[in-house]
Amino acid sequence: MERRLHVVIIGGGFGGLEAARRLAKAPVNITLVDRRNHHLFQPLLYQVATAALNASDVAYPIRAVLSKQKNARVLLGEALAINVASRRVVLDDGAVDYDYLIVATGATHSYFGKDWGHLAPGLKSIEDALEIRRRVFLAYEAAERESDPAAQRAWLTFAVVGGGPTGVELAGALGEIGLTTLAHDFRSIDPTQVRVLLFEGQDRVLGAYPPKLSEAAKRSLEKRHVEVRLNTMVTAIDDRGVSVKAGDREERIDARTVLWAAGVQASPLAVSLGTARDRAGRVEVNPDLSLPGHPEVFVIGDLAKMQNADGSPVPGVAQGALQGGRHVAKLITAEVKGRAASPRPAFRYHDKGNMATIGRASAVVSTKRFALHGLVAWLMWWAVHIMFLVGFRNRVFVMLSWAWSWLTFTRGARLITGSVGELPAVKTIGSDGAVSMPVSTPALSLGGDGKPTAPPPM
Amino acid sequence: MERRLHVVIIGGGFGGLEAARRLAKAPVNITLVDRRNHHLFQPLLYQVATAALNASDVAYPIRAVLSKQKNARVLLGEALAINVASRRVVLDDGAVDYDYLIVATGATHSYFGKDWGHLAPGLKSIEDALEIRRRVFLAYEAAERESDPAAQRAWLTFAVVGGGPTGVELAGALGEIGLTTLAHDFRSIDPTQVRVLLFEGQDRVLGAYPPKLSEAAKRSLEKRHVEVRLNTMVTAIDDRGVSVKAGDREERIDARTVLWAAGVQASPLAVSLGTARDRAGRVEVNPDLSLPGHPEVFVIGDLAKMQNADGSPVPGVAQGALQGGRHVAKLITAEVKGRAASPRPAFRYHDKGNMATIGRASAVVSTKRFALHGLVAWLMWWAVHIMFLVGFRNRVFVMLSWAWSWLTFTRGARLITGSVGELPAVKTIGSDGAVSMPVSTPALSLGGDGKPTAPPPM
Repeated sequence: MERRLHVVIIGGGFGGLEAARRLAKAPVNITLVDRRNHHLFQPLLYQVATAALNASDVAYPIRAVLSKQKNARVLLGEALAINVASRRVVLDDGAVDYDYLIVATGATHSYFGKDWGHLAPGLKSIEDALEIRRRVFLAYEAAERESDPAAQRAWLTFAVVGGGPTGVELAGALGEIGLTTLAHDFRSIDPTQVRVLLFEGQDRVLGAYPPKLSEAAKRSLEKRHVEVRLNTMVTAIDDRGVSVKAGDREERIDARTVLWAAGVQASPLAVSLGTARDRAGRVEVNPDLSLPGHPEVFVIGDLAKMQNADGSPVPGVAQGALQGGRHVAKLITAEVKGRAASPRPAFRYHDKGNMATIGRASAVVSTKRFALHGLVAWLMWWAVHIMFLVGFRNRVFVMLSWAWSWLTFTRGARLITGSVGELPAVKTIGSDGAVSMPVSTPALSLGGDGKPTAPPPM
Repeated sequence: MERRLHVVIIGGGFGGLEAARRLAKAPVNITLVDRRNHHLFQPLLYQVATAALNASDVAYPIRAVLSKQKNARVLLGEALAINVASRRVVLDDGAVDYDYLIVATGATHSYFGKDWGHLAPGLKSIEDALEIRRRVFLAYEAAERESDPAAQRAWLTFAVVGGGPTGVELAGALGEIGLTTLAHDFRSIDPTQVRVLLFEGQDRVLGAYPPKLSEAAKRSLEKRHVEVRLNTMVTAIDDRGVSVKAGDREERIDARTVLWAAGVQASPLAVSLGTARDRAGRVEVNPDLSLPGHPEVFVIGDLAKMQNADGSPVPGVAQGALQGGRHVAKLITAEVKGRAASPRPAFRYHDKGNMATIGRASAVVSTKRFALHGLVAWLMWWAVHIMFLVGFRNRVFVMLSWAWSWLTFTRGARLITGSVGELPAVKTIGSDGAVSMPVSTPALSLGGDGKPTAPPPM
C-alpha cells in the first residue's frame, strides 16, 4: 500500500496556516509545528499593546483552526534546525521527518546590532504587546506619583522609533490614550499634556505609500499630539531616554518609554537551510519559492526574499505570506496527484494595496487604483481587518469592541498585569491632614500651614 | 478655612471600592491605594483560568471607576505598614497621612505552612489565573507530544485541592475543557479521557451550603469526569503529583497539574495594625468594624473577622466586603457632618445567599428561603454575576462571551501566553516518511516497515 506523503509546516502564521488549510483535500499528512499555540493576527497587535483589544481577540488557537481537518495535526514545539540532506526538522526535543517542508517562521525584531531589546520593546508577539501595554499604563501611574516636574514630563513622554505602519499606528494610539482615554482619570497630572515623538530616518513616514498619504498621515498624527521627526536617526537608547541625530544636530530627549518599530530581520532558523540570504537574513528562493537545490523545501512569508516578475521585492506583509502559502499548497497538491507542471509555475504576487490607521476615524489606504485617507479609509480598514481575522467569534467580538470604544471613547483592556516595578516616591503627604489635589501642576504637597512638607522618614 | 478630612482606603477590591463610591457626597478627600491598577471581580476569576473569559472582562481600572468622582484620587502603590500612632500609611516609596483609614486588603493563599506555592498555584489575582490557564493548556500540548502512555495519563490528570466554591468551579471547568472544548483538537490523545480529581478534607463539597446542594454538586461534577474524593487530605505535593490520605489509606497519584483552592489567610498588612488576629490572620474588629482603641481606623472584607449578631462569623465573600464598605462609609459620612451616633451602630450582615457553578447549565443556589440546583440555578447565577460586574461594557461583553460559548461549545480565550517550558520529547517520527496518527492510542511512531523507531540523534 502506498503511503501518504508527509508535509511538515514550520510556523502557524499567515503563510503556514494558509498552506495547511489549502492542503486539506490533498492526499498528504500534514504536521504543523509552532512554538506558540496560537495564530496571531499581527496587523491588530498594536491594539493589544494600546489596550483597545484583548490578546484573545487577535489570536486563535491553531489546533482549533485545523480541528476538523483530518489530515492535519498540530504540534507545539520549536524548530531548532533543518537537516535538508536527511529531510529532518530538529525540534527542541525530538525531530520530525518530511517529504515536503514549508518553512514559514517569519521575522523578528532587528535592533541593527545594538543591544536595545530590553530598553525598547518591539511588537511581534502577544508577550511583546502585553509588555508594551504594561509600560505605557505604568508610565501614567508613575507620573501621578512623581512630584518633580521634570521627572513627570519624562514619564509623560513616549518615543516610537520607526515611521512605518507599525510605528505610525502605535504613535497615534499613544497620543489618543493621553488625549482621550485617560484624560480625566488622574489628579496630579494632566494626561492631555502627553508628548509622543515618532522618529523616522527617511524624509517621510509610511515610505511604501504614495507621498500624499504620507503627508496626510503626518498631519493626522500631529493632531494627536505626536511630534513627527523625519530624517532623524536614533543613536543611543538608555533607560531614561534617547539620543537622536538629524543632519548635524544631535539631541537628547528624556522619555521613560521607548518603543521599537524600526527594523525586522528574518527568523534565525534560516541559517540551517544553508543557502544564500540577504542582509535582513531572508532566504533567496527560486521563483517557485523552493530552496535552491531542494525542490521539496519551500520558504514563504517574511522569511523568504520573494520577488515580483519585474525583480522588485514583495513586501513583508500578510498578503505576501498568504499568497505564498496558497501557491505552495497548489504546487504540492498538483505534484502528489501526479499532475506536476514542468517547469513549476513561478509565484506571482498580486499587490492588493496597503492600509494603515492613525487613530479614531483616520487611516490611509493605498492601492494601484486609488489612494484614500480620513474617515472613508478608516471604515475600509475596519472592514478589511474584520474580514481577515481568523475565527468568526473574533470577528464579532472585535467589531463589538471597536463599536463600543468608538461610541464611548474608552479602551476595553486597560489592565496592568505583571510586575509593577519601581515607581517614583509618593510625596503627596498631608502633615496634619491637608492634602492638596492639584490637577495640572506638579504634585508638591503642602502642609496645613501652606509650606511644602519634607519626605517622611521610612 | 476648615480643611477637609482625609480618608485613606487601602485596597480597591469589593470593600474598598464600595466604600470610596459611597463617600462620593461626603465632605472628605479620598485617596485609594492599590498595588494593582484594576478592581478584580474574583467570583469570575476561575473563568479566566479556564479560558472562558479574558482578564479584561473581569477586571476594571480603578481610576476609571472613580474618574468622575471629584473627591477621590487613586494611587498605584503598595502599603507596607500602618503606623496607627502617627496616623500614617507607609508605602513602598513614600507615605500617606490620614484622618480616617479603611483597610480592605483582603486575603491571600494559605498553604498551611507548606512551601507549595510554586507547585500548586491558587486563584486570587489575574496573574494566578493566567498561570493556571497556561499550565492547563500546556498539559494537553505536552500529552500530545508524549509517547509513553503512563506519562500521557499523568499530563491528562488534573488535581484540585479544596472542595469549596472555587475548587468546585475549577474542577467542573477542567472536566468540560477535556470533554467538550478540546475534544477534537488533538491527534495522539483523546482529551475526553481527562481525569480530574477534587480533594476535600470534609465529608462533603461546598460545606457552607445545605447538604442537598452538596450532593447535587457532587453528582454534577461526576458527570463531568471529576472524581470527588471526600474526607481526603493532601499530605504532599511535588512536580509529578500528589500524595493523599483518606482515613488510614494513603495513595500516590500522578498528576502534572495541581491547583490550590484549599485555604486562605488574611493579607500580611494586618500585622502592623498591632491588634489581635485569629488563626487565619484576620483582625478582630469591634462591632462597628473599627480597630480596638482606634475609632478612626476600620478593617473590612476578608481581612476582618466580622461577626453576626449571634456571634457566627461573616463568611469571606463579596457581599461581606460590599456591605462592610457601605457601613463604614455611612458611619464616616455621619461623623464628618456632625451627626455621629453614639455609640456607633454595629455592622449587621445581611446574608443574601450563596451560589456556585459547576459547569454548563449546572449551578447551585442557596438562600434562607430556597435551595436550587441545575439549570434554573445556573440562570440565576448568570444574572446575579452580570449585575454585580463593574462596568457596563464588561457586563455586555461577558454576557455575549457566555452566550457565544454556550451556543458554540467553545471557550474564547484559549491562549498559552508566557513561557512554554519543557515539553516531552516528540517521538512521532516517520523514518522514510511514514507517520502514524493515532487518535486514542499512545503516540508511538511506526516506521515504514511497521517497527517502532528509535529516538533521533539530536
